[in-house]
Amino acid sequence: MAELITYFDNASTTPVDKRVLEDMLPYFSEHFGNPSSLHDYGDRAHSALDNARSQAAALIGADEDEIYFTSCGTESNNFALWGIARALKGKGMHIVSSAIEHPSIINPLKEMKKEGWDITQIGVDSYGSVDPDDIKKAIKKDTVLISVMHANNEVGTIQMVKEISKIAGENDIIFHSDGAAAAGIIPVNIKKLGVNAYSFSSQQMYGPKGAAALYLRKGTRIKPLLLGGTQERGRRAGTENIPAIVGFGRACKLAKDEMDKNLKYITGLRDELINGIIKNIKNVKLNGHRTRRIPGSAHISFEFIEGESILLMLNMKGILTASGSSCASQALKSSHVLTEMGLSPTLAQGSISFSLGKFNTREDVKRTLEVLPPIVERLRKMSPIYKEE
Amino acid sequence: MAELITYFDNASTTPVDKRVLEDMLPYFSEHFGNPSSLHDYGDRAHSALDNARSQAAALIGADEDEIYFTSCGTESNNFALWGIARALKGKGMHIVSSAIEHPSIINPLKEMKKEGWDITQIGVDSYGSVDPDDIKKAIKKDTVLISVMHANNEVGTIQMVKEISKIAGENDIIFHSDGAAAAGIIPVNIKKLGVNAYSFSSQQMYGPKGAAALYLRKGTRIKPLLLGGTQERGRRAGTENIPAIVGFGRACKLAKDEMDKNLKYITGLRDELINGIIKNIKNVKLNGHRTRRIPGSAHISFEFIEGESILLMLNMKGILTASGSSCASQALKSSHVLTEMGLSPTLAQGSISFSLGKFNTREDVKRTLEVLPPIVERLRKMSPIYKEE
Repeated sequence: MAELITYFDNASTTPVDKRVLEDMLPYFSEHFGNPSSLHDYGDRAHSALDNARSQAAALIGADEDEIYFTSCGTESNNFALWGIARALKGKGMHIVSSAIEHPSIINPLKEMKKEGWDITQIGVDSYGSVDPDDIKKAIKKDTVLISVMHANNEVGTIQMVKEISKIAGENDIIFHSDGAAAAGIIPVNIKKLGVNAYSFSSQQMYGPKGAAALYLRKGTRIKPLLLGGTQERGRRAGTENIPAIVGFGRACKLAKDEMDKNLKYITGLRDELINGIIKNIKNVKLNGHRTRRIPGSAHISFEFIEGESILLMLNMKGILTASGSSCASQALKSSHVLTEMGLSPTLAQGSISFSLGKFNTREDVKRTLEVLPPIVERLRKMSPIYKEE
Repeated sequence: MAELITYFDNASTTPVDKRVLEDMLPYFSEHFGNPSSLHDYGDRAHSALDNARSQAAALIGADEDEIYFTSCGTESNNFALWGIARALKGKGMHIVSSAIEHPSIINPLKEMKKEGWDITQIGVDSYGSVDPDDIKKAIKKDTVLISVMHANNEVGTIQMVKEISKIAGENDIIFHSDGAAAAGIIPVNIKKLGVNAYSFSSQQMYGPKGAAALYLRKGTRIKPLLLGGTQERGRRAGTENIPAIVGFGRACKLAKDEMDKNLKYITGLRDELINGIIKNIKNVKLNGHRTRRIPGSAHISFEFIEGESILLMLNMKGILTASGSSCASQALKSSHVLTEMGLSPTLAQGSISFSLGKFNTREDVKRTLEVLPPIVERLRKMSPIYKEE
């Protein structure tokens, strides 16, 4: 590995903040009890769980008893889709979603289709934005659930969630939003957003892996995905992962307390990176919405060359990025998000996602702006489709 | 809390071994990458995942590509039941299980019954043992799955898994066993046991919460429970909880390497505790099988008094135990396991599970034998149903 590392893959996962890890440490070998136990160690674990629940609720403006802890964002999304759809099966079986959702929404919907649910997936414009009017038009008499993500994990576009909530509410339809790429990064107030259900996750906000949550507005019907003990008020069985949940709670608190500072800092770095790339490299295209976007996202297509090659050459220089979304990147297929946005396959495959976070520095941006142009130039010289202007 | 703590609730959860925690620590803030990422940090996380998989496989004598990581034992059990049953739906819908399974088996089966599956639950004898002949008799033409736990989490009885495997194999039925209370505690060799699927978990073997596994014999059909990315060869989506999985791997290795020593040590302590209780307190009953039992289990009924009261008074003296199983204990209902074993409701409710582990000492046993008799005596004096002999 290179000596100096620039980590620009924060959308995929973030390092655990040292303050978060410090909070977690006593819960492994010392306060290790099972919250369901009736003795003091159980009590202690239960208090830690309550505290984390209140921190997670506070981040999104929810009540504590509206938060259900799960093991990851994927579980929260699967729980929301299967759980709500099964609970409402008697009412109707039509679900509306978007075509640029995370695989943990796309793939359950594919399976649900096989099992008889009727699924409508709305397309997006060239900025990756869902038009709320398209949602409205897709609604049928038996639509029971809408699921549209809050922010896209690849290109960073923030969806018009409030507008979609309004439409859902007027039509008495449950609205779930996947907030894994938004919560902890941009301000989220569940009551203002108006959603009924909201997934969010620890590992993208400097908390540990192994903890996430599903917000469910009081009164929302859902069937459990994991059945067993009575944990999470009977809605998610399994011994609670206390150290991870404690860390998630602290990460939520830190994200809330330091939101303004981080937003300003990360947006500044990102703009510096984007402007530098556009200024120094020809034939590049910035993807995603220009204003409705999360602060750390700089998703750029480099014409004539392969994103994978850029990624690997940047990696050799200690600059860590993503091409496509990490959950699908092992598959080496073109991103479904970019395809839906209308990017040509070659442009889509020439894309790199630089996702910045609070631990990045001006130095990271400077190094990238030094290292990237010669890499792109070298790859273009080797490209059979490149024509120098 | 009392100054000196005796933790006798190891069946509920165990403290993380310091050596395990040490292995985990670098994966929170330093080697924090997402294994799906293509850069060096992704690689590093992926290697850690591979290493843990090989450690988990080695513990139970499986091949690496037969291990699927999940978030907890409950998830492994739900995954096995739903996944295998759904995959085999076309072949038949009858499932055989036992009446003393963990709630993470019992409750999914209850739900499956509602959804049209035909479920037969076999009773047990007074030692909590399932008779393999009863399994054989329960098999129908359309039986596709048998699920019987390896060791019972409450009373410690080890089931005749090999014999049940033989019956399952002869009838071409998939056999799943919940090994959460067995793996890492007693020697487990999946090939000798002959099962097709086996759940096991980190948090009962001095590993962290948040990691567990499902062993699936090569060629066993299963549908994923969590859909999304291509993690775990497409069978369990969601970013892998690397620190917890690393810890689970190390816990498996330690359990394997130190099995003989721990078995001997814990069995010795347990027998000392049981003999001391029987010698010093009248009207007690040791529950569970006399020989086919896990080493740490001392499950005892105290006539005429309430287990909850004993638990709470022991807790005041710093001795932490369980009454009923912890997953259900918040519900304050009589244990279904004891009821199935034919214990009278009053005897069942007068039960305490002392579950010993490798960190317990002779001193723990000594203190308990000092503290317990006067507690039992005091409670019996207050009991309206107690008659002194």
